[in-house]
Amino acid sequence: MIVKVLGSAAGGGLPQANCNCRNCADVRAGRPGLSPRTQSSLAVSGDGKQWLLLNASPDIRQQINATLELAPPPGSGMRASPIAAVALTNGDVDHVAGLLSLREGLSFTLYASKRVLEALAANSIFNVLSSRHVTRVALPLEERIAVGGGLAIEAYAVPGKVALYLEDASDGFGTREGDSIGLEISDRVTGAAFHYIPGCAAVDASLAARLHGARLVLFDGTLYTDEEMIAQGLSEKTGQRMGHISMSGAQGAKVGSMAAFATLGVERRIYVHINNSNPVLREGSPERAAVERAGWEIAYDGMEIRL
Amino acid sequence: MIVKVLGSAAGGGLPQANCNCRNCADVRAGRPGLSPRTQSSLAVSGDGKQWLLLNASPDIRQQINATLELAPPPGSGMRASPIAAVALTNGDVDHVAGLLSLREGLSFTLYASKRVLEALAANSIFNVLSSRHVTRVALPLEERIAVGGGLAIEAYAVPGKVALYLEDASDGFGTREGDSIGLEISDRVTGAAFHYIPGCAAVDASLAARLHGARLVLFDGTLYTDEEMIAQGLSEKTGQRMGHISMSGAQGAKVGSMAAFATLGVERRIYVHINNSNPVLREGSPERAAVERAGWEIAYDGMEIRL
Repeated sequence: MIVKVLGSAAGGGLPQANCNCRNCADVRAGRPGLSPRTQSSLAVSGDGKQWLLLNASPDIRQQINATLELAPPPGSGMRASPIAAVALTNGDVDHVAGLLSLREGLSFTLYASKRVLEALAANSIFNVLSSRHVTRVALPLEERIAVGGGLAIEAYAVPGKVALYLEDASDGFGTREGDSIGLEISDRVTGAAFHYIPGCAAVDASLAARLHGARLVLFDGTLYTDEEMIAQGLSEKTGQRMGHISMSGAQGAKVGSMAAFATLGVERRIYVHINNSNPVLREGSPERAAVERAGWEIAYDGMEIRL
Repeated sequence: MIVKVLGSAAGGGLPQANCNCRNCADVRAGRPGLSPRTQSSLAVSGDGKQWLLLNASPDIRQQINATLELAPPPGSGMRASPIAAVALTNGDVDHVAGLLSLREGLSFTLYASKRVLEALAANSIFNVLSSRHVTRVALPLEERIAVGGGLAIEAYAVPGKVALYLEDASDGFGTREGDSIGLEISDRVTGAAFHYIPGCAAVDASLAARLHGARLVLFDGTLYTDEEMIAQGLSEKTGQRMGHISMSGAQGAKVGSMAAFATLGVERRIYVHINNSNPVLREGSPERAAVERAGWEIAYDGMEIRL
């Protein structure tokens, strides 16, 4: 099984169009220690021929053009693509807007929770993915299904938040089960498997039990500290308000992912969906050193993992 | 006034993710005579400080990152952008999807026809452009309004078609006035002006009269021949079905833009919104020679015009 990180950043990417934070300003100026990053998507294949996209970021056209394996195979017909399926983990813009770049007759199966498919159906702009070309399949929770390319996926609910554009005024902003899911992707031939959870508000007992002993987890690396965007003058929101656990934090409501994973025995753990404000993006920073000491890797665009 | 072509291609860009046509295959392979092109957007400024985007293509983040003038000015605050306004000429995905990349607190004024604003309002995903940051203004037709940055725009209806995702089963697919507009952008200080019409089904008498003697027109260059996508095995649709006049064609219903402009006395005419199937994209092709003989230029990404 081949896993390619198409985009390792959270919404906005690095640099973000309107952001002057230290990371964005430095990467824009080409200073060393930081690399540009596009927004959150992966590509996975069991057979190296048919590919499953995990989330479709707004940068998906640029990401496909940068990935040789995702080009139409020469001689495969005038309109063709090795992209056979797309699976979504939530309805956030940084995970669904790229669907609008998979129009123009590209044929694929779209997997998402019932809640996310309802959100797409309520937005007529996604009609450019016509039912002639795109089959929309509601992902059952806690059930493994075959998705082509020699792969199977199992979706499960994780603590999270409904997409920003669907928030209401209620407690929890109207979040319901299925708004945020994790995916276990497995190779149906070799049995190799990994978990992909780019948006997650907390590692609760159920998630901890599920991930225990896993070979590989790609996990929500949005923020290093819960209040980092407020502290940098970028936003009024904490990570918790956005539905994202932080990397750091050791106790109480703010236990972070490093602490939560410390006893899970996960063989390889990689942060994805990393916000431009996050100091771990900077090589040599104390925060980068801290996550590496805790056994984590920082995903980068073009990163390839074989399982 | 400075006009920058951020993206010169029609929907899908060059190469298009799932396209194996000769142009897409050759540009993907890096063969000479063709350059990659992102999708249809311009940036315009009167003062070089505040910028107006004309259409927001799905590639807008990549385009902004490639355009030094559109980066947040250093020292201008943590969240800042020289992009002060965006004007849309229709509701097509290749012109509106990029709005989803102008979220994250970017403040601007969004100008579009009442019809297009209604389409956006009916799609909750565009709620990520909150009214706290983005003011939506319905463009009156045939009335000049100031839009900041020393610029004014005047919108006018042109023959066209409603966006694909809004088509209905009626004759004309439900197209109504305002679904497709042209824009005259003028410098309020110097009086310099140009027309931008990236989607247009025909040059009727009213449009011909309006463009007569213009200094610069950037015009719909989607297809060279009306049936080119069918002939290449790419689509079942003619240019007319998609709401696009062709470049070639000299008589009857299929009079093309070269012929239609021949007697208009437009000083400088440039094709934009060029589909990947169009043979004029290939340097040295007979079609490229024909449009150049007719006095047309082919826009390219990064092209800059000063008026």
